[in-house]
Amino acid sequence: MKEIEPRILSGFMELCPAEQIVMNKIIDTIKNKYELFGFTPMDTPIIELSDVLLAKAGGETEKQIYRFNKGDNDISLRFDLTVPLARFVAMNYNNLTFPFRRYQIGKVFRGERPQKGRFREFYQCDIDIIGNETLDNSHDAEILSTICNVFNELGITKFKVHLNNRKLLNGFLEHLKINDKYQEILRIIDKIAKITEEQFKEELLKLNLSSNVISELMTFIKIRKDNDNIIEALNSLGIKNSNFIEGLKELDILIQNMKFYNVPNVNFMVDLSITRGLDYYTGTVYETILDDYPEVGSICSGGRYENLASFYTNKKLPGVGVSIGLTRLFDQMRSRNLINFGKKVSSDVLVIYMDEKNKNYAFNIVTMLRNGGIKTEIITDDIKFKNKMNYANKIGINNVVIIGENEENTKTVSLKLMDSGEQKTLSCNELINYIKDSFDSKKIFMLN
Amino acid sequence: MKEIEPRILSGFMELCPAEQIVMNKIIDTIKNKYELFGFTPMDTPIIELSDVLLAKAGGETEKQIYRFNKGDNDISLRFDLTVPLARFVAMNYNNLTFPFRRYQIGKVFRGERPQKGRFREFYQCDIDIIGNETLDNSHDAEILSTICNVFNELGITKFKVHLNNRKLLNGFLEHLKINDKYQEILRIIDKIAKITEEQFKEELLKLNLSSNVISELMTFIKIRKDNDNIIEALNSLGIKNSNFIEGLKELDILIQNMKFYNVPNVNFMVDLSITRGLDYYTGTVYETILDDYPEVGSICSGGRYENLASFYTNKKLPGVGVSIGLTRLFDQMRSRNLINFGKKVSSDVLVIYMDEKNKNYAFNIVTMLRNGGIKTEIITDDIKFKNKMNYANKIGINNVVIIGENEENTKTVSLKLMDSGEQKTLSCNELINYIKDSFDSKKIFMLN
Repeated sequence: MKEIEPRILSGFMELCPAEQIVMNKIIDTIKNKYELFGFTPMDTPIIELSDVLLAKAGGETEKQIYRFNKGDNDISLRFDLTVPLARFVAMNYNNLTFPFRRYQIGKVFRGERPQKGRFREFYQCDIDIIGNETLDNSHDAEILSTICNVFNELGITKFKVHLNNRKLLNGFLEHLKINDKYQEILRIIDKIAKITEEQFKEELLKLNLSSNVISELMTFIKIRKDNDNIIEALNSLGIKNSNFIEGLKELDILIQNMKFYNVPNVNFMVDLSITRGLDYYTGTVYETILDDYPEVGSICSGGRYENLASFYTNKKLPGVGVSIGLTRLFDQMRSRNLINFGKKVSSDVLVIYMDEKNKNYAFNIVTMLRNGGIKTEIITDDIKFKNKMNYANKIGINNVVIIGENEENTKTVSLKLMDSGEQKTLSCNELINYIKDSFDSKKIFMLN
Repeated sequence: MKEIEPRILSGFMELCPAEQIVMNKIIDTIKNKYELFGFTPMDTPIIELSDVLLAKAGGETEKQIYRFNKGDNDISLRFDLTVPLARFVAMNYNNLTFPFRRYQIGKVFRGERPQKGRFREFYQCDIDIIGNETLDNSHDAEILSTICNVFNELGITKFKVHLNNRKLLNGFLEHLKINDKYQEILRIIDKIAKITEEQFKEELLKLNLSSNVISELMTFIKIRKDNDNIIEALNSLGIKNSNFIEGLKELDILIQNMKFYNVPNVNFMVDLSITRGLDYYTGTVYETILDDYPEVGSICSGGRYENLASFYTNKKLPGVGVSIGLTRLFDQMRSRNLINFGKKVSSDVLVIYMDEKNKNYAFNIVTMLRNGGIKTEIITDDIKFKNKMNYANKIGINNVVIIGENEENTKTVSLKLMDSGEQKTLSCNELINYIKDSFDSKKIFMLN
């Protein structure tokens, strides 16, 4: 029989068991927090009809798409979770209660050129709040508060959400009377973290902007104040443009609301260079940067949009949302040794019995452990004691419960700790408590 | 702007929020049980290289596959979780500890003709135990015990695992000297639940089997005994064929082991008509039938195989596993009204404040509730009190916490129960305990 080399496509992440255990913990933590904050789960198909999925797309997105024919259908794999959300809300509009709060955690697909740190299949973890015709501004802070809670729970405390408001930025360009080139200018501002100040100026000069205007623009987007003084600083510019004034008011409300939501001041700041692409977003926009690892780039981004689903419905559906690019975050943290892989196996306890006579008692112990929430394996293979201990060693289970005649007679167990070699005699309840006390309470990421 | 009709492909399940909440609970329950039984998580890519994925496939499988080209790659969507497992184990052979116990819950894709109750995208929930060169027979009972625990936890107690052993069946065909037609015969036996006895006979007659042989075969596969007497009954047939004897011994060991694993006698039986397709399985095979809804067909099937990954490696990797077809199970139970949809919203509590003055206190309550594990929403929209209560009503949250001046002054909350109209004044701790006590403890499926 001809063997085929077992391999996977490049750009696809596949984890070993020890890593997968941690990845699942991360997903569970995010899911749990999203639910505690009142978001309802959604699970849309991986495959959608191409005309539906690509109703709005174009350019780069369309090129990257996994698109193909099956039978009579022109179909594509989803490339984000926002388009399926728009399609879902438009489809189910009459059955939903607004504001509609949903989360979705799932894989999306983009056929990008393979490149270090870029993935073709990756997890997005999204929350969005969708209003019917209107959506109160307070929801912007709610989204950010959820995200801050997620990161804290994961062990990421040193991060900053960089906030901006598109109306503010557009208003400033109008004020400078360069809003006819706003697309090109935003595209250049978007690159600011990646290019030098000189390059930035050069790019703007190519648009035939005057040095004065460029200088004013640069001064503006570099304004840095703490959260208690930024609004006053922007106010004192005395700009009369109505978009600017509206954006500033929204930013003010957002910063005030962040206090109600208990988001620490160290975890957010206004950054007037944040644009988040060209279209879609219309108000608040944000990216999230790690204090000590800015080179990782934004680990979670989003913002407010005027209209979620204009390609599918004439209902106006404003919303605000955020997305964590989980696969990339995991990859970046792993490569920097910032993940606490803790106990590297799934099982907490391995049960071994000395003799067939004790098998029944051993199984009772296993059942009690599992009912007590302890992940438990039992070796029933007909192999030597030494080989049973070898398995424990190799797979990395620290807690080995050994059951012999003595244990059965005294209704106890012997617990051997593989790391220290120590051995204890315990009742089954004591065993459950001992194991639970030994659970790793460290956070997953080590970014405190 | 031209609107595109928002729609999904036929054969793809998409749930509304109330259903999705239950579906997620089911997945969590399965995942939790799989982990308590010592299985480690795996998450393989949705997309694989076609030559790898289809190394073994052929016939129907290959026709149903979602296969396409992207760049230079001929790629396909996975159609089950077993082939990716085989690929993974062959790829990572040197880094794994055997027996290797993994679970995977994920979507798989088959482009079947759309048909009621058939899905093109569906969840499989698999566990497998893979040995290196050998795998002790005791693991067969372990797999079945895990599954029985899963179903019990889900509220499915009235079911039966139908057990057989392929060696036993093949041995019996050898004994009848009709093993040269074993593929055709197995295919007919496989259909036995769907055709009449007359049709069954006719199909066998077409293979030129004698009436005597057909009669012996039918008598054999219809043997029914309780679990304590089946082995003796089969022994008493006095068949000397070595495959038959080996299969019988394996079946005997399995039934004995089921006792150790505390699988109730009512949840399994020997059914000599179970074949599980033509190749792959080599020993124990099983399907699972609901006592009161046999027309649903098998809700979970699997068995033992000699060699998991012969297409990828020359290492011999025997294994035993099982797969729950979750999407179909959910669909079948839903259509029979056998799912307890319980509380139909994600959030447990909605917090409303009477005046901006109380906003800060309201947010403190929200934070305490969430820290206490209570899923909580707060309405910050600037809308009338009546409209806030309307939202609670429409979305179906029963517990509404109302915060006014009086509550803030007395450090209490008012809890209004929407179903009864009752109102209580509680401290925050009392509130948390009250909500937790009201959690629905009913099982998800109502098949007790």
